Amino acid sequence: MTQFNEAELTEAVVASFAQTPDARTKFLLQELVKSLHDYVRRTNLSFDEWAAAIDFLTRTGQTCTPSRQEFILLSDVLGVSMLVDAINHRDRAGATETTVLGPFYVGEHKVTPHGTDISSDLKGEKMFVQARVTDLSGAPLPGAAVDVWHADDEGFYDSQRPSYASDGPSSRARFIADADGRFFFRTILPCSYPIPTDGPVGQMIVSTGRHPMRPAHVHFLVDAEGYEPLITHVFIGGDAYLDSDVVFGVKDELIAKVDQRTDPVMPDGKLAAAPWHLMSYEFRMKPGAGTAPRPMLAKPIDAAAE
Amino acid sequence: MTQFNEAELTEAVVASFAQTPDARTKFLLQELVKSLHDYVRRTNLSFDEWAAAIDFLTRTGQTCTPSRQEFILLSDVLGVSMLVDAINHRDRAGATETTVLGPFYVGEHKVTPHGTDISSDLKGEKMFVQARVTDLSGAPLPGAAVDVWHADDEGFYDSQRPSYASDGPSSRARFIADADGRFFFRTILPCSYPIPTDGPVGQMIVSTGRHPMRPAHVHFLVDAEGYEPLITHVFIGGDAYLDSDVVFGVKDELIAKVDQRTDPVMPDGKLAAAPWHLMSYEFRMKPGAGTAPRPMLAKPIDAAAE
Ligand SMILES: [Fe+2]
Ligand SMILES: [Fe+2]
Repeated sequence: MTQFNEAELTEAVVASFAQTPDARTKFLLQELVKSLHDYVRRTNLSFDEWAAAIDFLTRTGQTCTPSRQEFILLSDVLGVSMLVDAINHRDRAGATETTVLGPFYVGEHKVTPHGTDISSDLKGEKMFVQARVTDLSGAPLPGAAVDVWHADDEGFYDSQRPSYASDGPSSRARFIADADGRFFFRTILPCSYPIPTDGPVGQMIVSTGRHPMRPAHVHFLVDAEGYEPLITHVFIGGDAYLDSDVVFGVKDELIAKVDQRTDPVMPDGKLAAAPWHLMSYEFRMKPGAGTAPRPMLAKPIDAAAE
Repeated sequence: MTQFNEAELTEAVVASFAQTPDARTKFLLQELVKSLHDYVRRTNLSFDEWAAAIDFLTRTGQTCTPSRQEFILLSDVLGVSMLVDAINHRDRAGATETTVLGPFYVGEHKVTPHGTDISSDLKGEKMFVQARVTDLSGAPLPGAAVDVWHADDEGFYDSQRPSYASDGPSSRARFIADADGRFFFRTILPCSYPIPTDGPVGQMIVSTGRHPMRPAHVHFLVDAEGYEPLITHVFIGGDAYLDSDVVFGVKDELIAKVDQRTDPVMPDGKLAAAPWHLMSYEFRMKPGAGTAPRPMLAKPIDAAAE
């Protein structure tokens, strides 16, 4: 009889999955067993450490709600989300770099006219965003749909505020690129913000001496027919956390030089009330099909907002 | 600037934990990052597979309650619990083999007189258990405290029954070894039983073509002063699942030959009403200190039972 002792155990567990009907599932589970067992052996994991891991995973699951996904956050701060993104986005030469979706996308936004101030009721320094969606050769992609979202001047997304259910979305909108592939809007300059530190993942990060900050950025999700959906951020150049983003989302090419301006008029000819910032960016789309991965737990909030 | 791309990402994540104050925590986290990243690369994990993993972990956490620990169950069916047990119990030559605590221990039981029928109100074939606690040389350990628990004739533990809160414990008790290291009690013959299949872990096991069964067994937790606590099972010889225990807890030495008897009296001289079974076992304790790991989520039920 097989002995489930240190010498024979791993092989027995791997063999137990031999009848898994789906070949890929079988491979993933058998490799998972090998990785987990290798980790336990390599680290000589103690009972107390194992129990602490069980407790951490349990609390992480129990922190998840319809508007909060603590396991995605865990994947993010361990660099797993960015690695999955990277290995699924090889061969993007010439196309805009991708990065993580993040936990604050709430589903397709409401189509909004160009030029709209999407943060009109929020405090903060004004910013004008002008952008363009093109193919790899720089030719415009009219009709491309672009979801945009970012944090407010205090570092919170609208969906993190208790008022979200009643007030609806803020600092998020959907724009449709014009005949020249362009879209533009007004908003405020976002600031760097911490991941939530009131849950097990944020507490773990702080306890290890890591800071919980993300550098300031605007999220973009670009959909154009015949092109791979593009999930990315544009980061505000000069931010102190660009080199130590807690979720490892930064890539050089995604950092925009955001200029402070004093011109009395903005690019669309309308008056500027105060010093303002200008963000310009061009999204180059890679031909292909597919849909962007959508968040799993955001549906109730999405429904409430519509 | 460090680029968080496929080539540099893992090193950047490992480096992010460099300031962790506790050296062991730092080691465990950095090795975890290496293991997780290696797994993602080796399997070329897709977005959908990553999302399925997030969803599975979330549901596993949300299935945990004060009387149910689905993450321990996951650890059990992946052989991780037995591996942690094995690497923390090397050098037990001559001592009784250990195995997993399992999710149904509810904390120290109530001291019960020898000979008591601990399943008096349950259906099932009668069994007489006679056991002895000794040191490595076979010398008795009087006063050793032994917690005993097992499933009923339908494969359920008392704590899985809705009636547990009102009726209190059944098929569980604590015995104190006599001057000769002996203790004995009556109960029913336990049967093989499935792990819960109504949660994500059981569903995963069934979907991979594995059966969810554990071979019939009685749990023992033996505490004797000056000896390492012993957490183990004694399995009923001949069970159909001994070679394929879903949690990999079986070891040859822990299988007892349980005889069917027709003698009119039991070993303590009292009358036997029907054919009965006899289980005999000797627990050999290893000198040492330490306390047995206790379950984490069982406290509310434990409290209710007392
Ligand atoms: Fe963000
Ligand atoms: Fe059991």
